[in-house]
Amino acid sequence: MSTIRTLTGITTSGTPHLGNYVGAIKPAIQDSLNPGISAYYFMADYHAIIKTRDPQRVHESSLQVAATWLACGLDTDRVTFYRQSDIPEIMELCWVLNCMTAKGLMNRAHAYKAAVDANVAEGNDADQAITMGLFSYPVLMAADILMFNAHKVPVGRDQVQHLEMARDIADRMNHHYKVGFTLPEAVVGENVAVLQGLDGRKMSKSYDNTIPLFEPENKLRKSINKIKTNLLEPGEPKDPDDSTLFQIWKAFADESQIDYMRREFENGIAWGEAKKQLFELVNEELKGPRARYEALMKDPGYVEAELIKGAVKAREQATPFMERVRRAMGIRPLA
Amino acid sequence: MSTIRTLTGITTSGTPHLGNYVGAIKPAIQDSLNPGISAYYFMADYHAIIKTRDPQRVHESSLQVAATWLACGLDTDRVTFYRQSDIPEIMELCWVLNCMTAKGLMNRAHAYKAAVDANVAEGNDADQAITMGLFSYPVLMAADILMFNAHKVPVGRDQVQHLEMARDIADRMNHHYKVGFTLPEAVVGENVAVLQGLDGRKMSKSYDNTIPLFEPENKLRKSINKIKTNLLEPGEPKDPDDSTLFQIWKAFADESQIDYMRREFENGIAWGEAKKQLFELVNEELKGPRARYEALMKDPGYVEAELIKGAVKAREQATPFMERVRRAMGIRPLA
Repeated sequence: MSTIRTLTGITTSGTPHLGNYVGAIKPAIQDSLNPGISAYYFMADYHAIIKTRDPQRVHESSLQVAATWLACGLDTDRVTFYRQSDIPEIMELCWVLNCMTAKGLMNRAHAYKAAVDANVAEGNDADQAITMGLFSYPVLMAADILMFNAHKVPVGRDQVQHLEMARDIADRMNHHYKVGFTLPEAVVGENVAVLQGLDGRKMSKSYDNTIPLFEPENKLRKSINKIKTNLLEPGEPKDPDDSTLFQIWKAFADESQIDYMRREFENGIAWGEAKKQLFELVNEELKGPRARYEALMKDPGYVEAELIKGAVKAREQATPFMERVRRAMGIRPLA
Repeated sequence: MSTIRTLTGITTSGTPHLGNYVGAIKPAIQDSLNPGISAYYFMADYHAIIKTRDPQRVHESSLQVAATWLACGLDTDRVTFYRQSDIPEIMELCWVLNCMTAKGLMNRAHAYKAAVDANVAEGNDADQAITMGLFSYPVLMAADILMFNAHKVPVGRDQVQHLEMARDIADRMNHHYKVGFTLPEAVVGENVAVLQGLDGRKMSKSYDNTIPLFEPENKLRKSINKIKTNLLEPGEPKDPDDSTLFQIWKAFADESQIDYMRREFENGIAWGEAKKQLFELVNEELKGPRARYEALMKDPGYVEAELIKGAVKAREQATPFMERVRRAMGIRPLA
């Protein structure tokens, strides 16, 4: 059986929340246990600086994100877990890919176009406050992926276009320089839950409606109690499919627990009771990882050592591969 | 006396010609002998791949350019002479600067705008055949300069805007991250000759009118014989200031030789005789360097060793400096 290489980047600009856990971390860690998969996970700190210019936030988020993945069971002997900024070959490849990327391709990127539309709607210059980092971000993403010749990249729908761009760039590189880049495929997790936040919208840092993944038990209870519900009284039947509570329940429950809660909703469970049971379910799954997370946060030296180990592993591939790319372009020792 | 750092990049996409020698190489090497100057010279191979996708040309040009500078007397113990692609920190800094560079700044770059204008005039899409490498080239140039905190960058008039962009980017970096980049200044050589080519236009690879700097003696003679002259007969007075021959003469002659040839023109020197004397003057200056060049071209191992020596010297600065930049952005070890 040939090995499939998958690659996942995690931007280090915030604190992981329940939505990240359900939508990305948990399925990724499950995938990594598949013996046919060789998985790469990286802390995308050079993407983070596009979004935030707060050095403290970038630094703290790096520790939180790395500790989260380790606490959730990432086995760094099986996978390659590294920090983007530890692999200078990625930024070097990014420049090389720039020279093969049509500017017109970037003009069509959804994220860039959305920023332009917002500027125009406000009566501003089209490129107001748009940096070259934001504009050329798909090229760095292509470098992240192509450097390790990833076959599959699990992404949200909004990232599918960027994967197509990475394929396009790889194809042009292969055509001109015969480097033999693998053409990556986007994998959109159809069954992956997009969790709702406290206010019922998608859980997202930008909406300030998140439940931090590893907040202490008592805070987790308070957060769950804050989830928006409707005004139905105890005893009145409730619609599970219209409920953020039930949606989070589904993400943590097994089949029989899902059936059970669906019936409880039909039987008119009180919101307070449903919240209590949701807290217990979520807390049961998280308490082990939370304890490991707390221990890791107190031992940044251990987390750092894991990342260094990952960087060594990643560069064992990146260094000779980048040399191959350079040679293909005529950049090689003179003798 | 405090030291002034100067920086010069040479794109490795062609064979050095007489115009490069007179306009860039000779004055740069003279500058490097100034005890108050700490000079950096680099082979800009990651700029070359913007212009050419011919690996053989990039490779051969690298050897030719490096051998030329060494043959012309660059003292690698005094200066720092390196190959851009040997300093991965430059491409890393390039990404960092992207995140601080307004896209609007790049929209206004003359070279980009000229390419757009040409496309529009042809009825093509504005960004037709424009790569991200071409579009973001001023950011890489800023990284080249800011990495070594150069004070002064000798440039042609067409590059003055790029220097202003590098200052602008440095200023924004300093404002947000307090990195303390030196703000570089463009130095436009007022007295530096822009040599005319065989056809009387500016000597340039793009016009195919160059005299290769180190072509063999008999070829140099032939090239000089091909320089375009008018139909005036021997004995008829000639206008030195309207003559490519005289212009090249001036670039190689001392004051008394210039006066002498001016009189010869007034006295109606035959074009054939003027060409013969020009060949002798130019050849006298070039024959020593040419012999060294030919020897170096046969000893690429020596040239490579010089570049490796330069890379070590350059990275002694670049590695800790890039670490400082990273730390300022919050990218540093977790413990």
